[in-house]
Amino acid sequence: MKNYELYLFWEAIMKKKIAFLIVGMVLLVTAQAITSSFAEDSKPFVPHVVDASTGNIRVPEGYRLWPTLGTWAHAKKDTTLKTNGVAVHEYHVVYTQPETIAHYQKTGQFPDGAVLVKELLHAKTMAMSTGPVVGHATTTKGWFVLVRDTQGRYKDSGLWGEGWGWSFFSAEDSVHTTSKNFKAECIPCHMPAKPLAPANSVEEDKWIYALGYPVLQKK
Amino acid sequence: MKNYELYLFWEAIMKKKIAFLIVGMVLLVTAQAITSSFAEDSKPFVPHVVDASTGNIRVPEGYRLWPTLGTWAHAKKDTTLKTNGVAVHEYHVVYTQPETIAHYQKTGQFPDGAVLVKELLHAKTMAMSTGPVVGHATTTKGWFVLVRDTQGRYKDSGLWGEGWGWSFFSAEDSVHTTSKNFKAECIPCHMPAKPLAPANSVEEDKWIYALGYPVLQKK
Repeated sequence: MKNYELYLFWEAIMKKKIAFLIVGMVLLVTAQAITSSFAEDSKPFVPHVVDASTGNIRVPEGYRLWPTLGTWAHAKKDTTLKTNGVAVHEYHVVYTQPETIAHYQKTGQFPDGAVLVKELLHAKTMAMSTGPVVGHATTTKGWFVLVRDTQGRYKDSGLWGEGWGWSFFSAEDSVHTTSKNFKAECIPCHMPAKPLAPANSVEEDKWIYALGYPVLQKK
Repeated sequence: MKNYELYLFWEAIMKKKIAFLIVGMVLLVTAQAITSSFAEDSKPFVPHVVDASTGNIRVPEGYRLWPTLGTWAHAKKDTTLKTNGVAVHEYHVVYTQPETIAHYQKTGQFPDGAVLVKELLHAKTMAMSTGPVVGHATTTKGWFVLVRDTQGRYKDSGLWGEGWGWSFFSAEDSVHTTSKNFKAECIPCHMPAKPLAPANSVEEDKWIYALGYPVLQKK
């Protein structure tokens, strides 16, 4: 609203000619307050990521605007070394909600509903002005999505357990998980995280490789 | 406001007993609108990062909660290869404001006031379940901060030119820049970015290594 319009509005109030408008505005504000009050009461568990009835997980939209916890750079060290040379071949970038970081910094724990998205990307290596072997991300290969669950929900789902919901998605489909059983498909790669975790973590949080996430570490 | 209180409020309106309260609320809303209108007019240029009088730049607080554009993983390929093996030795993580990403996705350009923070981190390499050579960030080494300037401000400062403000900070001091002259200290490392930039970029945006930032690239 421009200042001149505000002036006219103000003048009209002074002339007491817009009583109906005033009452209308107050009614509108009241109605909005009631609506948002109801909306908060019925807020579902991580609404955009979990199907409340089945526990099926999907990759959240807009996660690339969330802060990152860290990036894992993978350089293959095998027979390709001779042909490819020293290079970064894959990136795993981990995103989470800002409120999850704030909660962890305050309490040292992941809050119920925390969503961790690990985006798998192809990486390319090139010589740059900062060094001869520098990797950067290119295209997406797929996603791992983890959802913190402190309440033991979805006991019948093969995707939930050990305090988290676990899913993998290929790049072609960010809605339907490719993984079916977290015990067989997810836990084995996370077993080595346990002894690396901060000693004072709750057991469920020890599944996360927090050592790569400076933002979660005490200064 | 609880629902019961809203009900009482509503009832009072119906009884036309709170005309003064209504008028008071409208006056408050009007006053706030006028205040915020003035505030927008006098909004300083990237207030928390640039000293408006000198053009001095500082590392923004809370940048780790901003989204990242990408991470550059540096693996030294030199005489240390024989002793250190294949490894990631340094990370450059680039953060920017969410509104900068939204603007770039819409227009293909960095907006006036865009802040890019390149955080330099030490990196550690270890064998993990996902591969034998995996790097992750550890502690902060320093920061480069770039501020987009479409207006040619601070012509007398050695830190501003070519459409940007440029500064480097060592890890010990995020407020006082270590660099004094962007032409000598910053431009040389960004020269190779020009031919790698999207052809339709404005000249000033070609200083940025956008090839490493999937979120800015057209699908």
